[in-house]
Amino acid sequence: MIKIVVDCYGGDYSPSANVEGAVEALGSHEDLSLVLTGDEQEINKELSRFNYDKARITVVNAPKVISHEVKPTVAIKDAETSMAKAMEIVRKEDDVAGLVSLGSTGALLAGAFLKVGRLKNVLRPAFCPILPTMDGKGVGICDSGANAECTPDYLKQFAIMGSKYLEITYGFKSPRVALLNIGTEEDKGDRLRLEAYELLKNTECINFVGNMESRNLLTGELDLVVCDGFSGNVLLKSTEGACLEMLKMLKRTFTSSLKNKIGALFLKKSILKTKDFMDYRNYGGAVMLGTKKIVVKCHGNGVAKTVANCIDQAYKMQAGGLNEAIEKALEQYAPRQTSV
Amino acid sequence: MIKIVVDCYGGDYSPSANVEGAVEALGSHEDLSLVLTGDEQEINKELSRFNYDKARITVVNAPKVISHEVKPTVAIKDAETSMAKAMEIVRKEDDVAGLVSLGSTGALLAGAFLKVGRLKNVLRPAFCPILPTMDGKGVGICDSGANAECTPDYLKQFAIMGSKYLEITYGFKSPRVALLNIGTEEDKGDRLRLEAYELLKNTECINFVGNMESRNLLTGELDLVVCDGFSGNVLLKSTEGACLEMLKMLKRTFTSSLKNKIGALFLKKSILKTKDFMDYRNYGGAVMLGTKKIVVKCHGNGVAKTVANCIDQAYKMQAGGLNEAIEKALEQYAPRQTSV
Repeated sequence: MIKIVVDCYGGDYSPSANVEGAVEALGSHEDLSLVLTGDEQEINKELSRFNYDKARITVVNAPKVISHEVKPTVAIKDAETSMAKAMEIVRKEDDVAGLVSLGSTGALLAGAFLKVGRLKNVLRPAFCPILPTMDGKGVGICDSGANAECTPDYLKQFAIMGSKYLEITYGFKSPRVALLNIGTEEDKGDRLRLEAYELLKNTECINFVGNMESRNLLTGELDLVVCDGFSGNVLLKSTEGACLEMLKMLKRTFTSSLKNKIGALFLKKSILKTKDFMDYRNYGGAVMLGTKKIVVKCHGNGVAKTVANCIDQAYKMQAGGLNEAIEKALEQYAPRQTSV
Repeated sequence: MIKIVVDCYGGDYSPSANVEGAVEALGSHEDLSLVLTGDEQEINKELSRFNYDKARITVVNAPKVISHEVKPTVAIKDAETSMAKAMEIVRKEDDVAGLVSLGSTGALLAGAFLKVGRLKNVLRPAFCPILPTMDGKGVGICDSGANAECTPDYLKQFAIMGSKYLEITYGFKSPRVALLNIGTEEDKGDRLRLEAYELLKNTECINFVGNMESRNLLTGELDLVVCDGFSGNVLLKSTEGACLEMLKMLKRTFTSSLKNKIGALFLKKSILKTKDFMDYRNYGGAVMLGTKKIVVKCHGNGVAKTVANCIDQAYKMQAGGLNEAIEKALEQYAPRQTSV
């Protein structure tokens, strides 16, 4: 049995999306059991809408929601919040594999660092979301925002952890890893990039294909982009933002005249498919790589399907033995001493 | 008379797009004269296709093209290349306002730093392209790639120079300046961002509105995004890339079935308008801010219209007295001593 905790607050559609997603995920895996944290009464009320195997869902009362007003490192200490409670269960109970949360990224990060802790040899845990590419395979970005400042060794570890994640969770064979840079030539970029390039080139357990420019993120040429958390965050959010604005623009176009409305009717099915394709809610979340137990950050405006996908990700990471694989890989590539 | 040099090589459609763009620009401004550098014979042949005021175009022979194979700092020293020749004319001739080039960004940067030089008090010249926003106003990004590593003082200067550029060249009133960051709260980001935030907050001659996330680049909420050249480059290229991939996807959708083709026919006019709107070739180039004379980098795959727009930008910068305004503004805000 694989046991995962679902923090039932903090999302735009919480707790109903969380509870519905939890029930949906339960249907996909027979050996999955879930612990839901949040207001017990409210969650039980939500659960009463569904038929599910009652033996596989436990509710733990933690009625408070992490506040965005409070500093994340302080907020995560309030044991009555659904997120802190979820963290506590993950930390204390050996048979719990990890947690899924839609709540504050800052608080989740603080909790992951302070309460869950790092795997052996991991310098810094990092976020690794997967964006849909035009060929349907998807591309991972690591780190997408956990570490604004990085050393070359961090980047090397992101490459190793991200590769293992794609191999084990999604069946990628020898994922193509590229370093995010401002040009493709080997001598491009700042000191961090120049040093990281050297390190990545000499890391045998990854399939390093060189520098990449952000323009090529969605083309499907690459499987994993390695970067510091600052530029990774810029990469992720500007891509999401541009796609979103394009979709809005299309919507306006489709409704701007009668002629356009008629044309849009013909195209409706395909357009909806495109919209679905670009909608990150149809995918999973940003997993944290390098923490002792699994932590998956689900988008704050995730719907039930998004939550179910995130639980599925956590399940697959655990079932595939991702953390053991990361620990083993990093043992062979111990970090250098570095002063950067 | 405002005199601008046009480097006629280095673009995908050079020299024909350059020459056609030059002639087009000439038609827009009566007091504009142009110097075209490149293979004299070839350029004259291109020119012979058009009717134009011959007194206002001079051709200077420089038959070689900057090679992408050669290191930019070396390539720019070859005086027989069209770009080096353009730089030389800009440097030597007092009555020349600046240059427009479609060639290698690296060589252009090297030339701008080594041959054109910085304005008084400018720490680092920076690139500032303008992207189309959904409200049609556009948003500047400074720096978009000239300086991969930055100090807080550089960022402050980018904010001042970018603001003056938008005011003088495009008539923005008190442009809204934001700092690119990984969250909107004041305490977000790395040391560079934290220090830059403090500096920007206390710079009275700009309209600083706080941190911004890359997700909001195209919404029209902002006029100028200030960032280091590395993350600015990621921001610019990932936005361009995402829009491009979306357009490709739409094109596939529109032709994927008979039904879709019919729908697309109804929408054709509007879709072409959207496509035009997103096509950066319909806009100008990335201007360099902070160089002694004007330097405009035109996109390598620019067409005649793009070249004409870039010449128009250079014209307006000169006509509006941008460099004098930048020098004056920076005098009042001399950089701190900094060790970052």
